[in-house]
Amino acid sequence: MSNWLDEIKWSDDGLVPVIAQEQDGTVVMFAFMNRQSLQLTLDRGEAVYWSRSRQKLWHKGEESGHTQKIISIRTDCDKDVILLTIEQVGGIACHTGRHSCFYNELQDELWQVVEPVLKDPNEIYTK
Amino acid sequence: MSNWLDEIKWSDDGLVPVIAQEQDGTVVMFAFMNRQSLQLTLDRGEAVYWSRSRQKLWHKGEESGHTQKIISIRTDCDKDVILLTIEQVGGIACHTGRHSCFYNELQDELWQVVEPVLKDPNEIYTK
Repeated sequence: MSNWLDEIKWSDDGLVPVIAQEQDGTVVMFAFMNRQSLQLTLDRGEAVYWSRSRQKLWHKGEESGHTQKIISIRTDCDKDVILLTIEQVGGIACHTGRHSCFYNELQDELWQVVEPVLKDPNEIYTK
Repeated sequence: MSNWLDEIKWSDDGLVPVIAQEQDGTVVMFAFMNRQSLQLTLDRGEAVYWSRSRQKLWHKGEESGHTQKIISIRTDCDKDVILLTIEQVGGIACHTGRHSCFYNELQDELWQVVEPVLKDPNEIYTK
């Protein structure tokens, strides 16, 4: 039976790019999901990505506690990108300890860090 | 000489994924850029993407007039994604005539269209 997952245009690798933004519009992260992780994301109400580097399911926050509660799940006109609205638990999405991963801004043709580290990663990842 | 473009981690295809959001946080589009299009985006102050389907530079709005004025250019912790803050000229980013491309929302495991068509695409693309 056809379902909502079949409508997504998965890449040859079986993945779809995913943008995670907070309710105030802040884009905090970009990652990928496969079919199973998108289903799990819906079922659990928390973002579950597919880690391309580790080639395994990645329940965001599994180590750090910085989970992402799902507010809404959208897709685009081509149904080949997912846009999540999330609540970022702990207020830290980035593994560097920053609020958002998008902390480098182009200024005079140089990438400048424009967001502070909120928590030392050594304190976040204690395993 | 090394420059800001060299710091971006381009894919094997020489591309980088790009998220375009408005100043109020609305994510309106997702596309790709290559090195030349990112340089042109900076130089022109308007978004220039790389069309994977047409395999050519794509100055967003070249046909529709719905250009995207660049407010800021950011990249993430891994420097492999670009986040643009833009001003969407004409208030329409999507080729379907909607404000944003992300108009399908998952509701009860069905994709529901949650944004109206603001202008008939036949009136937007008259060429």
